[in-house]
Amino acid sequence: MFARLSPDSPSRLLTQLRARTPLVQCLTNTVVINFTANVLLAAGAAPAMVDVPGEAGPFARIAAGVLVNVGTPHLEQREAIVEAAQAATDAGTPWVLDPVAIGSLPVRTALARKLLEMRPTVIRSNPSEIKALAGMGGGGRGTDTTDSPDSAAVAGRHLALGYGSVVAISGPVDLIIDGHHEVRVNNGHEYLTRVTGGGCALGALIAAFASLDADTFSTVTAAIGFYTVAAEFAAATASGPGSFQTALLDRLHSTGPAEFAEKLRLL
Amino acid sequence: MFARLSPDSPSRLLTQLRARTPLVQCLTNTVVINFTANVLLAAGAAPAMVDVPGEAGPFARIAAGVLVNVGTPHLEQREAIVEAAQAATDAGTPWVLDPVAIGSLPVRTALARKLLEMRPTVIRSNPSEIKALAGMGGGGRGTDTTDSPDSAAVAGRHLALGYGSVVAISGPVDLIIDGHHEVRVNNGHEYLTRVTGGGCALGALIAAFASLDADTFSTVTAAIGFYTVAAEFAAATASGPGSFQTALLDRLHSTGPAEFAEKLRLL
Amino acid sequence: MFARLSPDSPSRLLTQLRARTPLVQCLTNTVVINFTANVLLAAGAAPAMVDVPGEAGPFARIAAGVLVNVGTPHLEQREAIVEAAQAATDAGTPWVLDPVAIGSLPVRTALARKLLEMRPTVIRSNPSEIKALAGMGGGGRGTDTTDSPDSAAVAGRHLALGYGSVVAISGPVDLIIDGHHEVRVNNGHEYLTRVTGGGCALGALIAAFASLDADTFSTVTAAIGFYTVAAEFAAATASGPGSFQTALLDRLHSTGPAEFAEKLRLL
Repeated sequence: MFARLSPDSPSRLLTQLRARTPLVQCLTNTVVINFTANVLLAAGAAPAMVDVPGEAGPFARIAAGVLVNVGTPHLEQREAIVEAAQAATDAGTPWVLDPVAIGSLPVRTALARKLLEMRPTVIRSNPSEIKALAGMGGGGRGTDTTDSPDSAAVAGRHLALGYGSVVAISGPVDLIIDGHHEVRVNNGHEYLTRVTGGGCALGALIAAFASLDADTFSTVTAAIGFYTVAAEFAAATASGPGSFQTALLDRLHSTGPAEFAEKLRLL
Repeated sequence: MFARLSPDSPSRLLTQLRARTPLVQCLTNTVVINFTANVLLAAGAAPAMVDVPGEAGPFARIAAGVLVNVGTPHLEQREAIVEAAQAATDAGTPWVLDPVAIGSLPVRTALARKLLEMRPTVIRSNPSEIKALAGMGGGGRGTDTTDSPDSAAVAGRHLALGYGSVVAISGPVDLIIDGHHEVRVNNGHEYLTRVTGGGCALGALIAAFASLDADTFSTVTAAIGFYTVAAEFAAATASGPGSFQTALLDRLHSTGPAEFAEKLRLL
Repeated sequence: MFARLSPDSPSRLLTQLRARTPLVQCLTNTVVINFTANVLLAAGAAPAMVDVPGEAGPFARIAAGVLVNVGTPHLEQREAIVEAAQAATDAGTPWVLDPVAIGSLPVRTALARKLLEMRPTVIRSNPSEIKALAGMGGGGRGTDTTDSPDSAAVAGRHLALGYGSVVAISGPVDLIIDGHHEVRVNNGHEYLTRVTGGGCALGALIAAFASLDADTFSTVTAAIGFYTVAAEFAAATASGPGSFQTALLDRLHSTGPAEFAEKLRLL
């Protein structure tokens, strides 16, 4: 099912990420914006939180990758998000959509549907949001969810085939779909759900990896694999969600390609 | 004075919080929004920072509790705050007002007075802000204050009796007033004043506890007791305000009902 | 070259900072606002993130120092920034300009040029931004830069002489210029570039020190020296950028005047 993923591909991409320090533009929510920038810096990318209309579009043309996250969709940011997504599409910059808490909340749901029509390179979300984006469910309680990724596989395939996006569905085992291939990443730790932005920051890391020299299915898999492997290492020394968050940044910085390859469990 | 607070009430409420994971909507300032979400997650609640007009009201109808904090009252958020407070009142959702730095700053002071007329379930603040809200003083220097909670007791009683709110006044010994009962919580640590959002995040935890099965006076006492007990445990292992903040999140997660009950000092 | 900097001046200013707890108003970007407030609290100052039009100006008249940082220049904040800078100038409150990522991004570049005409007390930035502000270069990739501070010395002198500002240029060795004097601070650690807001928070600390009883050239040198010395102490015990950030806050709190004086390396 994942013929395009050679065994050394994820660790090779990590090496490439650190050699290039890709510039990642994030238009994200105010809750997680600091942690997201720190995740990118720790892993080896360069964050740029450019989300003002008039700057967001031009910057998306020169960025290596773009994240749009609709978690706190204030009016000015909504305008900047559409501007950036359009410019990224025009310029061929890979961009990631994270449709946080869509479903019943009207402002972000309308925005996410508009963004979907612009054919995001990657859609990253939890199962309930993937179902809501595909019009197959009513949405969840925000970033929190109890559904398993496989419960949203049909919705994910629908989005992948309909919009040409790679779809990444978060859960204890992450599921990655491009319509023709599927792979599961069996890494991570429950503490990721006890830190705000655990998933949102991953969206930014996906945008960083999506700029590298490989097909998007492989780069998304590498990004999720690396993030969840670092989370496992971090959890092993943490005493709770506070020390886990600190250790996650340390481990995103210190985990090397060999450790990553050894710990990664693709299914 | 606090006949309604049975000895086991606070620890029982902590158990109930973790069993229910109440959904807490926060409309709060950009400085503390990340820490506030992490405090809720660590303690066992589910944060949702829904603060956009058109979403804030509908969400307040389904949330278990709502926090409104006027620390960075941007125009769009002011609109969302009023929308959420009105919807919470209509739907019977308990809501907490934190009137950060009111007194001489005109925008937030006008907003807080408007919110006061909507009769918040709980008002949580420092002494100078309580006095300013009651029209009995000129306000302080922001979240910083040197007054003792007892210096604001008269103002607190005035607010509690006039608006039907439980009033919580922060300080070395926290004071909780409902107009008929008063209790003091003698826990906490000076480091709470060296971390931004030390008090603001407590407002969100109060909104979480206020959703539980007890009168508001008891739930507010339990929330403040739990937060300040966790702070004491955290300070015991901290080397400064940075490691204290990390340890506080760890301890909000790990502190159990028995430890909490043993450490809590109500006066 | 730095005749006005007596050997004990920096450590004496640290003692004075902690004795006074200066109130520092920050109008800064949403990425670093939390860390900035925590840096001020840890070091011994009092942060107040007052950035709403109608409040920003009046507050700048009573604050001890003001930071304006254009990193996420939303419309409402742009208005508040101009209001605060004007009020600070009128009232004689020292204020610091951090022209984050100016150069090619049009909104913030126009704002920074307008602020420059208002003659900031201090300009703090990286080399590419200093060159862009002086009209001698095209700007960098945001807060990231690879140029050395000395590459921007000519631009820095131009700004210092033309606008009466003390100019602080960040890098492995920081360069401070007032047009007549120059000093280099040879402290710090590479981890400061791996934590978002490592430079932005320093701008706030400079605003705090600028309120003390000494000429601005000396207070800026003391602020940069203290921050980078604390960073060195923090790096010595850190395992990566996450634990470094935590340790930096601890060390800003615990480092005393004697340790500071001993570790400071001025060139």
